Amino acid sequence: MSSSERRFVISFGCPDRTGIVSGISSFIAEFGGWIVEAGYHTDIETGWFFTRQEVLADSLPFGIEELRERFAAVAEELGSESSWRVSDTGERRRVVILVSKDGHCLHDLLGRIGSGELDVDLRAVIGNHPDLGPITEAHGIPFHHVPFGKDPAAKAEAFEQVRSLVDEHDPNAIVLARFMQVLPPELCEAWAGRALNIHHSFLPSFAGARPYHQAYDRGVKLIGATCHYVTAELDAGPIIEQDVIRVDHTDDVADMVRKGRDIEKLVLARGLRAHLEDRVLVHNRRTVVF
Amino acid sequence: MSSSERRFVISFGCPDRTGIVSGISSFIAEFGGWIVEAGYHTDIETGWFFTRQEVLADSLPFGIEELRERFAAVAEELGSESSWRVSDTGERRRVVILVSKDGHCLHDLLGRIGSGELDVDLRAVIGNHPDLGPITEAHGIPFHHVPFGKDPAAKAEAFEQVRSLVDEHDPNAIVLARFMQVLPPELCEAWAGRALNIHHSFLPSFAGARPYHQAYDRGVKLIGATCHYVTAELDAGPIIEQDVIRVDHTDDVADMVRKGRDIEKLVLARGLRAHLEDRVLVHNRRTVVF
Amino acid sequence: MSSSERRFVISFGCPDRTGIVSGISSFIAEFGGWIVEAGYHTDIETGWFFTRQEVLADSLPFGIEELRERFAAVAEELGSESSWRVSDTGERRRVVILVSKDGHCLHDLLGRIGSGELDVDLRAVIGNHPDLGPITEAHGIPFHHVPFGKDPAAKAEAFEQVRSLVDEHDPNAIVLARFMQVLPPELCEAWAGRALNIHHSFLPSFAGARPYHQAYDRGVKLIGATCHYVTAELDAGPIIEQDVIRVDHTDDVADMVRKGRDIEKLVLARGLRAHLEDRVLVHNRRTVVF
Amino acid sequence: MSSSERRFVISFGCPDRTGIVSGISSFIAEFGGWIVEAGYHTDIETGWFFTRQEVLADSLPFGIEELRERFAAVAEELGSESSWRVSDTGERRRVVILVSKDGHCLHDLLGRIGSGELDVDLRAVIGNHPDLGPITEAHGIPFHHVPFGKDPAAKAEAFEQVRSLVDEHDPNAIVLARFMQVLPPELCEAWAGRALNIHHSFLPSFAGARPYHQAYDRGVKLIGATCHYVTAELDAGPIIEQDVIRVDHTDDVADMVRKGRDIEKLVLARGLRAHLEDRVLVHNRRTVVF
Repeated sequence: MSSSERRFVISFGCPDRTGIVSGISSFIAEFGGWIVEAGYHTDIETGWFFTRQEVLADSLPFGIEELRERFAAVAEELGSESSWRVSDTGERRRVVILVSKDGHCLHDLLGRIGSGELDVDLRAVIGNHPDLGPITEAHGIPFHHVPFGKDPAAKAEAFEQVRSLVDEHDPNAIVLARFMQVLPPELCEAWAGRALNIHHSFLPSFAGARPYHQAYDRGVKLIGATCHYVTAELDAGPIIEQDVIRVDHTDDVADMVRKGRDIEKLVLARGLRAHLEDRVLVHNRRTVVF
Repeated sequence: MSSSERRFVISFGCPDRTGIVSGISSFIAEFGGWIVEAGYHTDIETGWFFTRQEVLADSLPFGIEELRERFAAVAEELGSESSWRVSDTGERRRVVILVSKDGHCLHDLLGRIGSGELDVDLRAVIGNHPDLGPITEAHGIPFHHVPFGKDPAAKAEAFEQVRSLVDEHDPNAIVLARFMQVLPPELCEAWAGRALNIHHSFLPSFAGARPYHQAYDRGVKLIGATCHYVTAELDAGPIIEQDVIRVDHTDDVADMVRKGRDIEKLVLARGLRAHLEDRVLVHNRRTVVF
Repeated sequence: MSSSERRFVISFGCPDRTGIVSGISSFIAEFGGWIVEAGYHTDIETGWFFTRQEVLADSLPFGIEELRERFAAVAEELGSESSWRVSDTGERRRVVILVSKDGHCLHDLLGRIGSGELDVDLRAVIGNHPDLGPITEAHGIPFHHVPFGKDPAAKAEAFEQVRSLVDEHDPNAIVLARFMQVLPPELCEAWAGRALNIHHSFLPSFAGARPYHQAYDRGVKLIGATCHYVTAELDAGPIIEQDVIRVDHTDDVADMVRKGRDIEKLVLARGLRAHLEDRVLVHNRRTVVF
Repeated sequence: MSSSERRFVISFGCPDRTGIVSGISSFIAEFGGWIVEAGYHTDIETGWFFTRQEVLADSLPFGIEELRERFAAVAEELGSESSWRVSDTGERRRVVILVSKDGHCLHDLLGRIGSGELDVDLRAVIGNHPDLGPITEAHGIPFHHVPFGKDPAAKAEAFEQVRSLVDEHDPNAIVLARFMQVLPPELCEAWAGRALNIHHSFLPSFAGARPYHQAYDRGVKLIGATCHYVTAELDAGPIIEQDVIRVDHTDDVADMVRKGRDIEKLVLARGLRAHLEDRVLVHNRRTVVF
């Protein structure tokens, strides 16, 4: 059985009670659905139940639309309200990437896409500087340069332009790959749960600007990176993935920047993959990553 | 809800097919069982299905014996044969530890038990040298010194004595905490699935004797440790847990031994905990650790 | 050559300039001193030079006192003022440990001492609760229970008592092994550079109380621990060592506490070893750890 | 002071004795040389001494050629014979990369070069398959396709062609970036100390073919990668760098391949950087990496 066989993915959350697993699995079993991966989690603190299930598409007698309709009734009965979705691994995910001048995360994502590891439909890269246009276009991806002025009006206008460039693709993920601009609240809202940022520190340490300088000044022995959903509060959104790397006294700020880049790339790539595979369920400010 | 609330733990494996999750969860739901933790895994390569479920004991209308009887029917229907068990977190696990002269793993386990972190019934420590008797007894645990001769007959006799000292406690785990003797095949068989060893290398590298010397000679940049079930083939049993630590050219063999001890302690403690919580399911030579 | 052969250790810092290495090494060479380990570091940001050298004691024609006297002249010429020391690995380091109720760090240190890994002269353990008395005494170490009242006067008096119990041993290290009391400024001053704390978070994240609860609330994917010198500003002293361990959504606060303990023990043991071997040189708020 | 200021790098090894550090540092001090980074190591087992020093080029009154000549006398006096070299960070390192079909390591290196992180003169990429030509050329680097036949004669001829394509650039590093052909002994010899391979396992485990399949079959809990110098004995050359990543029962071989790639990329990039900065000193089968 190939791991690339088409699957329907059910992500689901509801208040915990008895019979949920039975309810969902019986629904799937009734139609002969073959579950190939399943995760369950009960958060005892909040009393919330989470599950994610992958069902072989060919094992069900109907398609994604009918599955969605039929499952809606199960979800309603279990009190899930809007905390569920059903997706199809056969549909390639649409992605838009926002960048500035620093290219390491973009290079990394382009390399993953180019080598076939990350099978997504990268629709566009948008930069507030033109620097990363050539490498983007060398990979056959459209690049849009949207200059950002310094005064608020120019900035607002630039964001309007970014918004329309992004929204025309209705992307599953908007990736802020070291995009050095703070999204305005209305974009945080519009892209809630779809906009991912990579922050170059192990949050909550060193939120805000120049985290490697902060890390150097504090004399920490590990530096890190954090992939999180963008919310209106800066660097405070739900965390999807984090990792760290060891540094010591021989590392100056430039060394930290260099070593940190490797962690930023890894953490962003892992976070994005988990997001696109519908593995991330958000509840309050925390995430379950199946 | 306290995490120490009493639970029944179901561990289960069978050939994969549709309807297994539904079958098990419906059985639990039928009696109002409250599942507080559940893991599911399908090994696509071998076509084998694994699950582990924790059900609140008080949510069921019967005790462990009746659960076991009733579940046996479910297991039989799903073709599990003997690949399942039901256990009770309210029963403290019985443990016997075998040691030689090196005390770091024993010290660590005694510390975890003494500080309440590892809540087990440590019945006895058996050593082929007397060195670790005093610290064992300072923790209020019986220590047995069983000297091992060098000739085969003396060794066989010593193993007989160890066997009877161990078996009288019918332990859930026999821990070889840097016990430097190779178990004879009949003991590997008798204690199959219950005897855990900590090997001081990242297996399969450096199996056999003096792994840190081997690691030093090969010039590796990380050293490790492996907790595995003991089988008749030396250092080749199913692996439960492994970890590594970085070394460099400044570390001589003595440094590796010292740094490696920290990894041995961690890996053994994690492996033992997983085993005692019935989180480890063995299939062929590989483990699922829920 | 045994690594336990007696050595003189020179730790030294001064403003960077040319000729320092030459000056120090020529001094050592002049008397036939055999350098078996040497670290050098220039901090470009602050223009400060650091070195640590281990010289075989038997390779020099004089003892520690004369070495100290002779080296003082070299240090003065290089502008080191008081930023240097010369120590003798043949003198066992004196240690006092302060504890409260949580025993995991104490158990770990006692185990390391008991198994011979950490060869120090542990003079006393002092607890503001009596709980850890028995295990301390089982290892043959004196335990002092100093109850801490809640009102400031009682607290001040208790600290006076702790101070005199500590100071009578003139310890090389005072280890706060999860001692839950904040040292008063005068003790921070009196024990500057000798008092080590283990904080149960990856500082500067989650300074202050209940760091695992803070970590859980923020939804971080790694938790950590920090060993640092105690200074008057809480949890802000120079960091000696840090490490982290991965957690995920299945870990509640109790799991984080349990997993975090393993990191606390490791980080404290490594930090203490580095300190006792005179490997840690402090400059401003950062450390060089050779 | 910028870290990119031009430096002369002295790498040096000789039998250990007293006075080496003094000899070298006095030589540098005599001419006012400013040492900005220095590493020293004595391997007690083999009695061999290693050092690496970075001296600011502008602090010396002569250039690299005269430094080399003058230092030769010092080296001879200390018995170093040919175990030393002096290099100039102002000279960009020449690199040739050999690839097959798998592009992740090449993508990664091209990204590092393109983003300015790895400042090398990549002269050519040579592939035994044409697949990675377009991405190479998109980065402005010449790509040569050298088809490898299956019979020994065709293979030998292909290797001759590769050899001449490589040798015309006199490269400081020949990088086997998942080049799936075993170098013939004469090339191992000709490129000794300059040919680096990335092996997709934590050597010495799983040397040879299909290491991820071997790792899966053995059920290890961590997989790794190894960057080593190529020698005539397959996968047995001196190790420069290694790292690992955690896997569990949910990872099938394809997942291991995907996760392993991230480690391969990191380990190769780190190993290559260390090599190009003359940080790696080989003695017998082990490396010192300053």
